[in-house]
Amino acid sequence: MEKKYIDLGFAKLDKDRVKRRGNCEAIYCECKTIEQLEEIFMTLKNNGQNVIGTRASKEKYAALKKIFNNLEYNEQGRVLKLISHPIKKVGEIAICTGGTGDIPIAEEAFETAQFYGSNVKKYYDIGVAGIHRLFDKLEEIRKANVIIAVAGMEGACASIITGMVDVPVIACPTSVGYGSSFNGLAALLTMLNSCAEGMTVVNIDAGFNAGYSACQINKKICEGKREI
Amino acid sequence: MEKKYIDLGFAKLDKDRVKRRGNCEAIYCECKTIEQLEEIFMTLKNNGQNVIGTRASKEKYAALKKIFNNLEYNEQGRVLKLISHPIKKVGEIAICTGGTGDIPIAEEAFETAQFYGSNVKKYYDIGVAGIHRLFDKLEEIRKANVIIAVAGMEGACASIITGMVDVPVIACPTSVGYGSSFNGLAALLTMLNSCAEGMTVVNIDAGFNAGYSACQINKKICEGKREI
Amino acid sequence: MEKKYIDLGFAKLDKDRVKRRGNCEAIYCECKTIEQLEEIFMTLKNNGQNVIGTRASKEKYAALKKIFNNLEYNEQGRVLKLISHPIKKVGEIAICTGGTGDIPIAEEAFETAQFYGSNVKKYYDIGVAGIHRLFDKLEEIRKANVIIAVAGMEGACASIITGMVDVPVIACPTSVGYGSSFNGLAALLTMLNSCAEGMTVVNIDAGFNAGYSACQINKKICEGKREI
Amino acid sequence: MEKKYIDLGFAKLDKDRVKRRGNCEAIYCECKTIEQLEEIFMTLKNNGQNVIGTRASKEKYAALKKIFNNLEYNEQGRVLKLISHPIKKVGEIAICTGGTGDIPIAEEAFETAQFYGSNVKKYYDIGVAGIHRLFDKLEEIRKANVIIAVAGMEGACASIITGMVDVPVIACPTSVGYGSSFNGLAALLTMLNSCAEGMTVVNIDAGFNAGYSACQINKKICEGKREI
Amino acid sequence: MEKKYIDLGFAKLDKDRVKRRGNCEAIYCECKTIEQLEEIFMTLKNNGQNVIGTRASKEKYAALKKIFNNLEYNEQGRVLKLISHPIKKVGEIAICTGGTGDIPIAEEAFETAQFYGSNVKKYYDIGVAGIHRLFDKLEEIRKANVIIAVAGMEGACASIITGMVDVPVIACPTSVGYGSSFNGLAALLTMLNSCAEGMTVVNIDAGFNAGYSACQINKKICEGKREI
Amino acid sequence: MEKKYIDLGFAKLDKDRVKRRGNCEAIYCECKTIEQLEEIFMTLKNNGQNVIGTRASKEKYAALKKIFNNLEYNEQGRVLKLISHPIKKVGEIAICTGGTGDIPIAEEAFETAQFYGSNVKKYYDIGVAGIHRLFDKLEEIRKANVIIAVAGMEGACASIITGMVDVPVIACPTSVGYGSSFNGLAALLTMLNSCAEGMTVVNIDAGFNAGYSACQINKKICEGKREI
Amino acid sequence: MEKKYIDLGFAKLDKDRVKRRGNCEAIYCECKTIEQLEEIFMTLKNNGQNVIGTRASKEKYAALKKIFNNLEYNEQGRVLKLISHPIKKVGEIAICTGGTGDIPIAEEAFETAQFYGSNVKKYYDIGVAGIHRLFDKLEEIRKANVIIAVAGMEGACASIITGMVDVPVIACPTSVGYGSSFNGLAALLTMLNSCAEGMTVVNIDAGFNAGYSACQINKKICEGKREI
Amino acid sequence: MEKKYIDLGFAKLDKDRVKRRGNCEAIYCECKTIEQLEEIFMTLKNNGQNVIGTRASKEKYAALKKIFNNLEYNEQGRVLKLISHPIKKVGEIAICTGGTGDIPIAEEAFETAQFYGSNVKKYYDIGVAGIHRLFDKLEEIRKANVIIAVAGMEGACASIITGMVDVPVIACPTSVGYGSSFNGLAALLTMLNSCAEGMTVVNIDAGFNAGYSACQINKKICEGKREI
Repeated sequence: MEKKYIDLGFAKLDKDRVKRRGNCEAIYCECKTIEQLEEIFMTLKNNGQNVIGTRASKEKYAALKKIFNNLEYNEQGRVLKLISHPIKKVGEIAICTGGTGDIPIAEEAFETAQFYGSNVKKYYDIGVAGIHRLFDKLEEIRKANVIIAVAGMEGACASIITGMVDVPVIACPTSVGYGSSFNGLAALLTMLNSCAEGMTVVNIDAGFNAGYSACQINKKICEGKREI
Repeated sequence: MEKKYIDLGFAKLDKDRVKRRGNCEAIYCECKTIEQLEEIFMTLKNNGQNVIGTRASKEKYAALKKIFNNLEYNEQGRVLKLISHPIKKVGEIAICTGGTGDIPIAEEAFETAQFYGSNVKKYYDIGVAGIHRLFDKLEEIRKANVIIAVAGMEGACASIITGMVDVPVIACPTSVGYGSSFNGLAALLTMLNSCAEGMTVVNIDAGFNAGYSACQINKKICEGKREI
Repeated sequence: MEKKYIDLGFAKLDKDRVKRRGNCEAIYCECKTIEQLEEIFMTLKNNGQNVIGTRASKEKYAALKKIFNNLEYNEQGRVLKLISHPIKKVGEIAICTGGTGDIPIAEEAFETAQFYGSNVKKYYDIGVAGIHRLFDKLEEIRKANVIIAVAGMEGACASIITGMVDVPVIACPTSVGYGSSFNGLAALLTMLNSCAEGMTVVNIDAGFNAGYSACQINKKICEGKREI
Repeated sequence: MEKKYIDLGFAKLDKDRVKRRGNCEAIYCECKTIEQLEEIFMTLKNNGQNVIGTRASKEKYAALKKIFNNLEYNEQGRVLKLISHPIKKVGEIAICTGGTGDIPIAEEAFETAQFYGSNVKKYYDIGVAGIHRLFDKLEEIRKANVIIAVAGMEGACASIITGMVDVPVIACPTSVGYGSSFNGLAALLTMLNSCAEGMTVVNIDAGFNAGYSACQINKKICEGKREI
Repeated sequence: MEKKYIDLGFAKLDKDRVKRRGNCEAIYCECKTIEQLEEIFMTLKNNGQNVIGTRASKEKYAALKKIFNNLEYNEQGRVLKLISHPIKKVGEIAICTGGTGDIPIAEEAFETAQFYGSNVKKYYDIGVAGIHRLFDKLEEIRKANVIIAVAGMEGACASIITGMVDVPVIACPTSVGYGSSFNGLAALLTMLNSCAEGMTVVNIDAGFNAGYSACQINKKICEGKREI
Repeated sequence: MEKKYIDLGFAKLDKDRVKRRGNCEAIYCECKTIEQLEEIFMTLKNNGQNVIGTRASKEKYAALKKIFNNLEYNEQGRVLKLISHPIKKVGEIAICTGGTGDIPIAEEAFETAQFYGSNVKKYYDIGVAGIHRLFDKLEEIRKANVIIAVAGMEGACASIITGMVDVPVIACPTSVGYGSSFNGLAALLTMLNSCAEGMTVVNIDAGFNAGYSACQINKKICEGKREI
Repeated sequence: MEKKYIDLGFAKLDKDRVKRRGNCEAIYCECKTIEQLEEIFMTLKNNGQNVIGTRASKEKYAALKKIFNNLEYNEQGRVLKLISHPIKKVGEIAICTGGTGDIPIAEEAFETAQFYGSNVKKYYDIGVAGIHRLFDKLEEIRKANVIIAVAGMEGACASIITGMVDVPVIACPTSVGYGSSFNGLAALLTMLNSCAEGMTVVNIDAGFNAGYSACQINKKICEGKREI
Repeated sequence: MEKKYIDLGFAKLDKDRVKRRGNCEAIYCECKTIEQLEEIFMTLKNNGQNVIGTRASKEKYAALKKIFNNLEYNEQGRVLKLISHPIKKVGEIAICTGGTGDIPIAEEAFETAQFYGSNVKKYYDIGVAGIHRLFDKLEEIRKANVIIAVAGMEGACASIITGMVDVPVIACPTSVGYGSSFNGLAALLTMLNSCAEGMTVVNIDAGFNAGYSACQINKKICEGKREI
């Protein structure tokens, strides 16, 4: 029987994931050497997959670019993409940030959601210090199937948005801030304790998870589903 | 111009919420006196709404039952319901728990998801200590539009489930456990740090939020949505 | 030379405080026995002062009421007052709460601010889950010299208010909430990390401190002050 | 209708803030690139505003100085100022520090309070290890309308000062210290738990917030206000 | 060879401690049943020792009093004493508290220090909210060989005292406070981070340890010691 | 195919565990109602198994005793046992405690290790305050195949023991202590950071886990194992 | 009488450890200078011992290699070995990791377990995101005498493995992850709170301790032991 | 009246401290620039004082050495000394460390205690992993008037020492360790929760405070004191 994964020793690449989970695996680049990444990307590419790598430094991009000449890089979001097959995008996700400093995490979510098949619109720097900036965009934001709210510091804009829309909101706290923000803990707790119902939360700085989950929900909504 | 809320002084009931958010407000009973609850339930009922109250003690139920004779109570889940209009339920949500101790929070999610319009199936006590119990139910669980995974202690079953399905999973940590579970913190952190993509998280013991968010996603999937 | 305090052994009552700080001392009742409270209240009364006691249980009130028949009690706010001289009130403070559960702390602030000489208006249950309730009251709230924002759970309404007014806001987190609210820590961190400038923060459930500080600022504003 | 903000994509500059809040927006430079800062400063300058930037590194100053030749920089406080219109300063704020290490944060508060229109006097290194240094300055400090107390390590000097004055005190903890100071947490908790009434607190190292809030109160006191 | 301890199974009483450590063992009553305490007290008494028990509830005292009719009890300090031999007391320790609520812990220290052979003077309620009360007593306090500073809330009075004396100060934080005092953590951190040199710290609410350590130092000072 | 578990709805009893894991399941009684426990015990008994229940209150014991007349109860350890088949015990485990207060957790470990098939010897109250008590027992303790060290407060005795033996040590922190013991966190961290190699750690107050793991190792040692 | 240790002033090398503990001491290189390490390695070598050093940087290896030409270095695991006498290896340990990022800690455990006398097999990257990779290896893993489970992020794979085997599992959390993984705290708590019985835990990133403890148990099992 | 301090603007040097506290001030070098240090050292020197500076980097030493040619530097302990007058040393302090990594903090304590007038003996690397090393030195250590126990990781050696001597022990936790040592928190909690009476604790890595407090006690013991 054919194995459901490819065994590289240091990594076991999950061939079964597309079938089991509906999507291919993403590569977390932070703890991997350039040699390991090269071997993983090559294997997945040869296996006929599009590849996405997250938390990739500029140095890793530069080294891999020499081998994979169609490798794309979003520097702010630190995302690598090696696209062999065109990606069909459906529906719509809105990505909002509280401030300018939250943009790198929002960009990671943006790339992820697109890679896995969603259209995405961006609404950056609309946090509570100047809430009219949010209100000005609200009608547009409401049209999305899913909203991602990315915010550091006190992270309150996720609550505000959730309280004014009727679609699912995925809140992503960021480590932007200082002092008692405790590297994103303040924003995380704000979001977990929101009294605006309909918001769920991902890990601090987890742009990938926010993008993946939003994309999954968006695609399910686009498919629709018959009553069981 | 008519006000969008009813002002009781100690509370401002949100008449606009159904229109703005698609659902009516729930009443958090924990910090409210019986007198306040009576006034709130009566006002909402007279306003023609179904009413749901969460975190209601047996004592509060007993007192309110004398006034509202069709008041329903889920004792495990501590949920009150005052139903004047029948609720249409669509789609399907699966609620799983790691252990027996997580059932009260699961029941809160169960009542909430039903109240807001979803069909729900329960899969209790299928945690990682005996993982074959989960595998045995997996085909059935996979059919749901959304899965809620409720777990205390180490909270790992949310990760396991997410890693084996292609639908959104909402993880709800519970305060079940002792010692370094720190009243649910261990389970919360496990869930936030899951390497199984596609899971989002709500607050510790937040059965209501898990149920509400799952219901919202389930209903959107049932509606489907045209491409923008 | 006359002592600046009255020495009761277990307590040293600060006679100098009115002169030094502009206000008399308040009595924190939580860790004191009924006998100690009786002795303190009697001494201060005999010294010609109005007396305020905070965090006083119903039992302590009942016991002391037998001795001081003009003793007043705000049960929600757990505040005792023994008023011998009428209090002149100036200016205006607005006390807002996010929810109904925050009212006890707001009432403590309310009694404190009045006791030390401020007019106070209350705006309860105007949190972010239904933000139009806040907007509806905004014009009125803006007229105050100082605003106290009392909120538990995610505590975001303090940020929202601060972002829309041009007067000082004192944010008071409360321990209302559950799970990762960690008894008010979530709300405290939200408030400390607010990106809306012009907000300062007091301890969790510190209605007294919020009321005292707001009163002090309000009175200074009413006095005005010449340029040095 | 004219927009209340200028949309740069990565940032939405709040034109309405002066009207709504009485003061213009400050630019938090830490998470912004030099290119972003250049665009923001230029836009605000062209909009006729004075500009203040906080947490600006020497490198950012050097780069921006080439474009804006009247750009001023307080290196200790890491504050940038681009002043087109003279600033009128009123009243008086006293900024005290516990030690020499707290000076950078005090300087940030100093620049901020001046920028928004207050006179400021400095009293550095007067902490509790040699409390007579504080007593020596006390008469002078008491004359201020508002006091800012900046302290790291155990942060006790804020309590001492508050206990001896009749004006509002804004306490700003700093991350100065080591070991169980936990980057300012010790000082923050000390200040939040002060039993000297009349103190409010800002975030760790939040010199900007301390300066802004003190300035707002000082200016309100200088204006005075009629009874409502 | 004779055993250095008496083995009761559930407890092993340390007969050697007087020789090895200069003092007999104290009995921590909190986790022991009345039966266990009875057996321990009887054994130690029969072994010819004075006995001290800490953290003893009123119920435990009442039960043991029936058996040991000369048993003494300090209710505030929750200390039991069974004295068979008179105790010689030397030198002097000063015990100061920040507030009235700290007295129970101070009384535990008081009983402990006396039991192990020190004279003790008490200075209660001299915290930073009215610092002149401390100054008024300072000359007297300075005469002690060792000072114990007991304080909850922000715990700052230990720093103030240390900064003004030339004798060792043992700081004992208490759990008095609320909100972000986190059951004494705030006071503990304040004390550990004090910039007044010459202070050492014991556990939160550790009146026994404070009393024991102060007594040990006081007695060593009274003995004096030749140069080695 | 026969199911590997018995489905009671609220619980799924793991019939496969003996085969898969070598031991039957234990019942965690804390979050279960008396009705649930009755059903579980009856089912397991009828399935021919010995039953062990942990964290069972006296009330639960009393109620279940009426139904199962051979039910045994260790009150200190809060352990229920329903033994239908005699248990064969092999090898030897030594259970040590730092103090008397740690005995309840030690008793839980004791019952567990016996239930799953090990001989156990107890060495109580041999902590670091009187280390000669430990040394006196050391030769005996060293003879065990595995040692369990149960300790609260600073938890140091686990390190001391580990540093003097050549057998595996399982350290179990307890919540005995006060103040900054933070309900066992101090002891847990001590044990995790031990510089004496050969110690592993279980959760705070996890007498069951300590007993189970020690028993498993002890039995494996008794079996021995050929080289692979 | 001969001393049981060699005194180098800055270090006291434990000659007695082999006799007392069955194994020689390991050298923790992180806080030691190259000069100190050189002296320690030389002394132990001259004393006839094999030497193992942990947490050794490449720089330290390079410097020591010049002196000890048979020095071996595992760069991923940062382990130094100076082997003078061949090591006999017995039994079998299985080392599993959740992901690729956990390999450095696994390699430290691998080197340690071999150094102290165990055969070791590696199973890397078999975490819960693709659990079939674990199942595929399960039969092989089950054959080991002891299993080490190394995992960061949510650390759930240790629970899964434990729930499916009948041998002791030592769980080693790693600091791999970001955000609320809090440098390994999330994985540590997951492991401590596992509801799969038979797992014990070591410190975060403590590959050495995991390897040492596993080796000790493995060797005891290989020896077997007669009933006492 | 002459000022009790010298005002340098950024620092206020405490001339009164010798009289008030018995000792001159130490200079905390970490947050001060070389220019500030130069001015402070020169001023104190010119004021006729010996000077001690703590936490001084090699760079700061090098820069200051050019100006003060008799400046001494303990590189491990990061202590600067500028001695103009010989220091008389009395009594004896024993400084013990658990491991080699704790030496830098011990050296800071060593320099401090000598500077303020005590003889000091060092006993390094005598922690619990090889406790016989401690026992070997015990008779010698016991002769000191005061003992300083410096330890990181689990910090248990402070408890062991305290349990075996009859002199005051000052425990100083260090940040040596990794993982859940949380930069010294584990050792700090161990020490605060010690059940060996007679130990007091200073901040993590606070070699200066340990040395200062030990010296103060040692000198008081050498002076002796008549009964009051």
